[in-house]
Amino acid sequence: MLTIAVDAMGGDNAPACVIEGTVQALRESGNRFSVILIGQSGKVEPLLADYDISGLNLRFMHAPEVVTMDDVPAVAVKAKQESSLVRGLHLCKAKEADAFVSAGNTGAQMAASLFVLGRIPGVLRPTIYAYFPRIQEGLTNIVDVGANMDCKPEHLVQFAEMLTIYQRYAAGIQNPIVGLLNIGEEEGKGSEVLKQTWKLLRNAEEKGKITFAGNMEGHDILKGKVSIVVCDGLVGNTILKFGESIPEFLGALFKPAMQQLVASRQLDQKSATLTSSMFKGLFEPFDVEKFGGVPFLGVDGISIVGHGRSSSKAIKNMIYMAEHMIERKVNAHIAEVLSEE
Amino acid sequence: MLTIAVDAMGGDNAPACVIEGTVQALRESGNRFSVILIGQSGKVEPLLADYDISGLNLRFMHAPEVVTMDDVPAVAVKAKQESSLVRGLHLCKAKEADAFVSAGNTGAQMAASLFVLGRIPGVLRPTIYAYFPRIQEGLTNIVDVGANMDCKPEHLVQFAEMLTIYQRYAAGIQNPIVGLLNIGEEEGKGSEVLKQTWKLLRNAEEKGKITFAGNMEGHDILKGKVSIVVCDGLVGNTILKFGESIPEFLGALFKPAMQQLVASRQLDQKSATLTSSMFKGLFEPFDVEKFGGVPFLGVDGISIVGHGRSSSKAIKNMIYMAEHMIERKVNAHIAEVLSEE
Repeated sequence: MLTIAVDAMGGDNAPACVIEGTVQALRESGNRFSVILIGQSGKVEPLLADYDISGLNLRFMHAPEVVTMDDVPAVAVKAKQESSLVRGLHLCKAKEADAFVSAGNTGAQMAASLFVLGRIPGVLRPTIYAYFPRIQEGLTNIVDVGANMDCKPEHLVQFAEMLTIYQRYAAGIQNPIVGLLNIGEEEGKGSEVLKQTWKLLRNAEEKGKITFAGNMEGHDILKGKVSIVVCDGLVGNTILKFGESIPEFLGALFKPAMQQLVASRQLDQKSATLTSSMFKGLFEPFDVEKFGGVPFLGVDGISIVGHGRSSSKAIKNMIYMAEHMIERKVNAHIAEVLSEE
Repeated sequence: MLTIAVDAMGGDNAPACVIEGTVQALRESGNRFSVILIGQSGKVEPLLADYDISGLNLRFMHAPEVVTMDDVPAVAVKAKQESSLVRGLHLCKAKEADAFVSAGNTGAQMAASLFVLGRIPGVLRPTIYAYFPRIQEGLTNIVDVGANMDCKPEHLVQFAEMLTIYQRYAAGIQNPIVGLLNIGEEEGKGSEVLKQTWKLLRNAEEKGKITFAGNMEGHDILKGKVSIVVCDGLVGNTILKFGESIPEFLGALFKPAMQQLVASRQLDQKSATLTSSMFKGLFEPFDVEKFGGVPFLGVDGISIVGHGRSSSKAIKNMIYMAEHMIERKVNAHIAEVLSEE
């Protein structure tokens, strides 16, 4: 049976939400896997006592230290060896767990994952991607979204190759399509790094590793023409956070406009409530909860990172994502493809 | 009287929209300035004949060549000396016009403006900014939006300084506030270029040249906490184009959802029409037409560039923008501030 280590202390709503999501995942899946929940006993055990966990494949493990959102990643990893984050990753390293899941400090998790688990042979830099809404059916991921600044062309190409493997084996996309985010569509656009990346992506396509659609621009992302958007971490992080702010921004414009229509008796309250609820629903594609979290691609092990705001539903979906990554042997496929270079 | 040279051939809807916008600007302003309209006589004069321009300060000038959207900027500038673009800029250089306005090929206009007019002394790289919607009252500009790739810290700082001067003298903002777009708010975040830029922006603040609010993230842009968002051209260009695609994206989700409410008789047609119109209005802040165009900051002269899709209203507003730039002596202020370095 697969074993997944879960960081009870990670996230704005930890440990309550993490415990809830973990119990939900085990119940909903019919105990399909086992979970080791790691955290401070004084904080976790009293909450855990509220659940009937008899019969669930759930084990608690005490870790006295906690990595917080304010901890500096490189420092936290070394200074807090007894944290749920570092202990959980060591369980993976020792093969006592098959994957690790956390909604805590992303930078610290990246640093700790690299430090404890290392990189898959051939990987220059592990990366992190995100989900994006799209008009057409399918899936859009953007990579990198903040783990890597100052990317070189060979880094960007590996991100595309790793995410192609992830989408093909774990997301059920038969033919992932890669686009290079640039200031124009034509070949030869952009900085020297982008021009060189374009050539390397074309080479990777010739070797059968990816399908490359060429350059794309910011207004192409939501159209869903490509399933993989490749860019530097600063660009991806900015687009991701900008996108996340749009529902709130439009909501702040929508609400008074709607109230105005009701106050002026142009619209009755029932229609207003109905339309408001429909409006809210439009932003469901922007909902990060649905996917829960993402794996660090290129790490020699499975370390799934979630949004700090993760709810119990998000935690549950992160646990399923971990199970999926293990079963589909994504890392073995990455090792195979990158070793050919 | 001020004289503004207008490129009749620039833009997707040229020359018709350009002629219309020019005539509107002269009529609406009561002939406050004079315009030299430049383009191919065979295309412009027949359309111009449809207007009663007697009494308007409008003069037509023939230019046999046209720079198209497909022309490679550096090549077009040298190969098409007889184009409306190059001729218009030469009118400025020769002081026969005080400003030049075009909605044509942005890259070519930037190259030609630099080539013909040169840089204001002290300017390392001219730049181009854009307008962004915001929740709070006020103005948000983002710089650079595609003219400069691979920016060095000293370039980014000058962009902030030049846009501060523009906002202070031409946009009526008493205290422009600069934010540096980064992956996190804390000092010390991001690439080496960003870390160094942060320090130089702090120095510029100490010298009284700007007000610096520190690092900001993608989700801060729409909040309107800063009036100037500083970033590399790739980041700015991507955010700008991504933002422009949002109304269409949400419209594509809204329309069928609304039709569904009507078809299922939950909402009557009148309420649906009313709400749809309100929804459309939400995106007014994303309307580029309102501002018309922007000046290239740092060029030793006034060259206003507009969106290729510019309507006659946008052209009209670009002409007003040109007048404003001349009257407020923005370039003289830039020369003064940058010469202190």
